[in-house]
Amino acid sequence: MHFADRLLQAVETKKSPLCLGLDPHWALLPEFLKEDAAPQEAIVKFLCPIIEATAAHICAVKPQLAFFEVFGSAGFAAFEEVCRFAKEKDLLVIVDGKRNDIGSTAEAYAEAYLRADLPYDALTVTPYLGQDGIMPFVEKCARNDKGIFILVKTSNPSAGEFQDLPVGDELLHEHVARKVALWGEELVGKEGFSAVGAVVGATYPEDLKLLRQDMPQQIFLLPGFGAQGATAGDLKNAFYANGSGAIVNSARDILFAWRKEQKDEKDFVSCAVEACKKIQVELWEEIFET
Amino acid sequence: MHFADRLLQAVETKKSPLCLGLDPHWALLPEFLKEDAAPQEAIVKFLCPIIEATAAHICAVKPQLAFFEVFGSAGFAAFEEVCRFAKEKDLLVIVDGKRNDIGSTAEAYAEAYLRADLPYDALTVTPYLGQDGIMPFVEKCARNDKGIFILVKTSNPSAGEFQDLPVGDELLHEHVARKVALWGEELVGKEGFSAVGAVVGATYPEDLKLLRQDMPQQIFLLPGFGAQGATAGDLKNAFYANGSGAIVNSARDILFAWRKEQKDEKDFVSCAVEACKKIQVELWEEIFET
Repeated sequence: MHFADRLLQAVETKKSPLCLGLDPHWALLPEFLKEDAAPQEAIVKFLCPIIEATAAHICAVKPQLAFFEVFGSAGFAAFEEVCRFAKEKDLLVIVDGKRNDIGSTAEAYAEAYLRADLPYDALTVTPYLGQDGIMPFVEKCARNDKGIFILVKTSNPSAGEFQDLPVGDELLHEHVARKVALWGEELVGKEGFSAVGAVVGATYPEDLKLLRQDMPQQIFLLPGFGAQGATAGDLKNAFYANGSGAIVNSARDILFAWRKEQKDEKDFVSCAVEACKKIQVELWEEIFET
Repeated sequence: MHFADRLLQAVETKKSPLCLGLDPHWALLPEFLKEDAAPQEAIVKFLCPIIEATAAHICAVKPQLAFFEVFGSAGFAAFEEVCRFAKEKDLLVIVDGKRNDIGSTAEAYAEAYLRADLPYDALTVTPYLGQDGIMPFVEKCARNDKGIFILVKTSNPSAGEFQDLPVGDELLHEHVARKVALWGEELVGKEGFSAVGAVVGATYPEDLKLLRQDMPQQIFLLPGFGAQGATAGDLKNAFYANGSGAIVNSARDILFAWRKEQKDEKDFVSCAVEACKKIQVELWEEIFET
């Protein structure tokens, strides 16, 4: 089944456009999990119970590769284990690797994360190298019913440093957006969305409106909600009236909810579930408010 | 010792600005190494003898992470082993990962590849996210005497699709170049070069001349030589008259030299050494020709 159709079906079934970001910052993990455990074990023991307990309330998980790579090959093995676990819980897995390269190297990255037998459904990709750095991923998506999300406008404060530079009568990120729309044209599923999606920071609500027009067939992956400052209302421009078209990432507010709530660290799972449910309801109500 | 000083010292000592690209394309590896061996073992058995035999003729190695990641955590373990081996042979290790992210995620990538105790000296980084995505790497370089190479103008045919877009009275990659010069200003070593270098495709010799002016303190990492079409003469604009200022990457022409020479695959090491020596002499003569 086509990646975009699978993702949108998950959103509808779960009544949740919420994607759980798996960012296991080592410094923020509960101390009791870190005692007497190798880092990779602590990460698995932290993430898997949260995934299991929140699976009914999220459409996907988005593991952030950097937090696994920091522990080298052992960390990478933990990443693989966590992803397999998420797939067993029937969740889509969007690998946040922001990979990019050209020719046979891009093919190797595509093979590494979009091969048919791997427990990953999609990968985030950076556009700076142009079409040569994108097409090997697009071809792999077409063959294996996988997806990519190309960085268009990121959520960080300095996103505009290059992305908002004026290029002719538009901004660089709008130019990239139109290319993304083009690159995804051949990969549209039954629901009208492409397997080639876009990363668009929720922190720039005005841009969301314009980018929705530039990329009508792209599913938007929206980072920046919550901890980075964007509210549920800010995201609305990314969604169509029927509630489709985007998913919202949240990591820290859920994973480390016990810290915010000043609860015992041993309650990290129940705190994560409560935070997750709250965000799910908030998003769902906001999207269908009108 | 400062990264740029270490790298330039290696170039001078070895009389070689040649960096050996470690791109172990699985399909191109000798068949006899692949029989009865797990992929990660075959990769180690292929790369380590080549590294050992060419070490006197190269200043650094540049492992391309994609070709290791394609075998997951086992491939990542092979990457670690190969890098440790290269360090034992007193080579600098430049990890070609083209990583990029923001805030704490960029910090995690910086920690993953630029931590003091790891067998890596530098990492390639993508600029699309702006300063937020660069500073965590720069800080780690300053603390641990490591380096980064930021993608400015890549060597691929579609490099210009975004990188050559006109931005005001300059092109995007020139704008990026000036930022790179700025980001690297505080990290200049004794020889006058920054630990923040730049990736500039050897396939665009005219750009090299302009970029040398825009980034006077950057060491250029030049991909695209040989298999991608650039000649030794094309690279000259990247070097200063005293022969410093750049290193040249070559992977396929050395690693898979026995294929080009139509020799027995069991002679892959001796063919690699011959190809490596030939390129070293060619580069050295061209740089000091005038």
